[in-house]
Amino acid sequence: MNLLSQSQIVAFENKMENFIPNHSVDCVILGYEDQQLKVLLLKWKMHGGWCLPGGFIFKDEDMDDAAHRILQERTGLHQLFLNQFYTFGNQKRAEHPTDQDGRLIKESMTQLGFTKPAVLKWFNKRFITTGYFALVDIAKAQPQPDFLSAACEWRPVNALPKLVLDHNEILEKAIVHLRHQLNYVPLGLSLLPKKFTMQDLQKLYEAILGKPMERSNFQRKILKLKVLVRREKLMSGAANKAPYLYSFDENSYHRLIKEGIGF
Amino acid sequence: MNLLSQSQIVAFENKMENFIPNHSVDCVILGYEDQQLKVLLLKWKMHGGWCLPGGFIFKDEDMDDAAHRILQERTGLHQLFLNQFYTFGNQKRAEHPTDQDGRLIKESMTQLGFTKPAVLKWFNKRFITTGYFALVDIAKAQPQPDFLSAACEWRPVNALPKLVLDHNEILEKAIVHLRHQLNYVPLGLSLLPKKFTMQDLQKLYEAILGKPMERSNFQRKILKLKVLVRREKLMSGAANKAPYLYSFDENSYHRLIKEGIGF
Repeated sequence: MNLLSQSQIVAFENKMENFIPNHSVDCVILGYEDQQLKVLLLKWKMHGGWCLPGGFIFKDEDMDDAAHRILQERTGLHQLFLNQFYTFGNQKRAEHPTDQDGRLIKESMTQLGFTKPAVLKWFNKRFITTGYFALVDIAKAQPQPDFLSAACEWRPVNALPKLVLDHNEILEKAIVHLRHQLNYVPLGLSLLPKKFTMQDLQKLYEAILGKPMERSNFQRKILKLKVLVRREKLMSGAANKAPYLYSFDENSYHRLIKEGIGF
Repeated sequence: MNLLSQSQIVAFENKMENFIPNHSVDCVILGYEDQQLKVLLLKWKMHGGWCLPGGFIFKDEDMDDAAHRILQERTGLHQLFLNQFYTFGNQKRAEHPTDQDGRLIKESMTQLGFTKPAVLKWFNKRFITTGYFALVDIAKAQPQPDFLSAACEWRPVNALPKLVLDHNEILEKAIVHLRHQLNYVPLGLSLLPKKFTMQDLQKLYEAILGKPMERSNFQRKILKLKVLVRREKLMSGAANKAPYLYSFDENSYHRLIKEGIGF
């Protein structure tokens, strides 16, 4: 495990003086792989705790810009379609944030070589955090851990370790938000290959909803949206059993995202 | 116009020392009256600008609790179902916040009798603000202006004055959020009388959507939700032309709010 260089430490300590106190940003980056919904996590050096990629807002920076900068600095991912979904404002955002994760993060910062009291005390403050989320194609994303992290990995959302602070709860809220979105926008364009079967699409919806759906019911509902174009059959076995392939009609897809399904 | 008493000034100044800096809460309270969607506004004493009821979060207070406290302190309304909808984090939340509204509010605070530099400078800070909204029955609500305000009034959302800072934008975002909600939850229980005609309900949806809907289309969609119970006819003219009255089946209504419409 690499220790930090003196210049990394000084640069980080100087930077922290220009952040707004008491407010942070956390990013829930969701992907889809092996029929599973996955989330991008960072592992703290020394401390070892897993967390969502997060950070702080510069005094002269828009919060949306901060979210993009933080995600890029911490994971290398950029130009994602980040959407704010909720702001977490409980005074105690975890059981015992100061005694437990707050202290551990402080110890970890000390071990990494940070010395400025303002920096070491920073993590014991109360933070209101705003959650942003994005859906990405795991095959195309190349996340990298930043200098504070030992790892940056995709983990299935239904088999997660205990994350630091209230990060499990933040993730859960992002997924609930995504489920709500299924009621008024189509979904899948950035998560599935260009052509897919009805079953592929159903598996994606089931992974997000966290429960199985009835096949004909799903098919009826999704065809009603008129965003799918039926393509050739997927030829692998007998022609009469081969399922059709579909692709999204991108014009209809984007129009529905703008206008919404339903009322 | 009443000036403030010395004790009001001292109490307020002392209170401000215990707020989190850089974060505020603004409440969008929407009601429905005369077939119009209305919003509850406060008018600053001296300054004269109209604004949403807003305020600050105590260091030891959950943000949700702060929203309820602020709304009660500023308008007298309490026990509402307040829902967070968005957090506004642009560095400049108005064209020239410091030169224009920031300065005006500071002047107004001076005229009201505030003297502490920390209090006068407070409003020139950058604030990230979290928006909360609630739907209320105007007939039952009795809003009252607080000691900082000259008036507290319901105003139709489609005929508003220029509000302070970015409050017009905050209101607009709340309405967009409400429109999205129509796609996955029923609406009207707290806004309509116990019994109403199909036309009453359609007018409410139209006021929120800001556009007319086709009658048979609306009726088909709303009946499909199975939240309405058909009652007797509204007897006022010829029986064959009298419309049916409806009421909400509250069990189905609350179940749909929990489970969502659609997928």
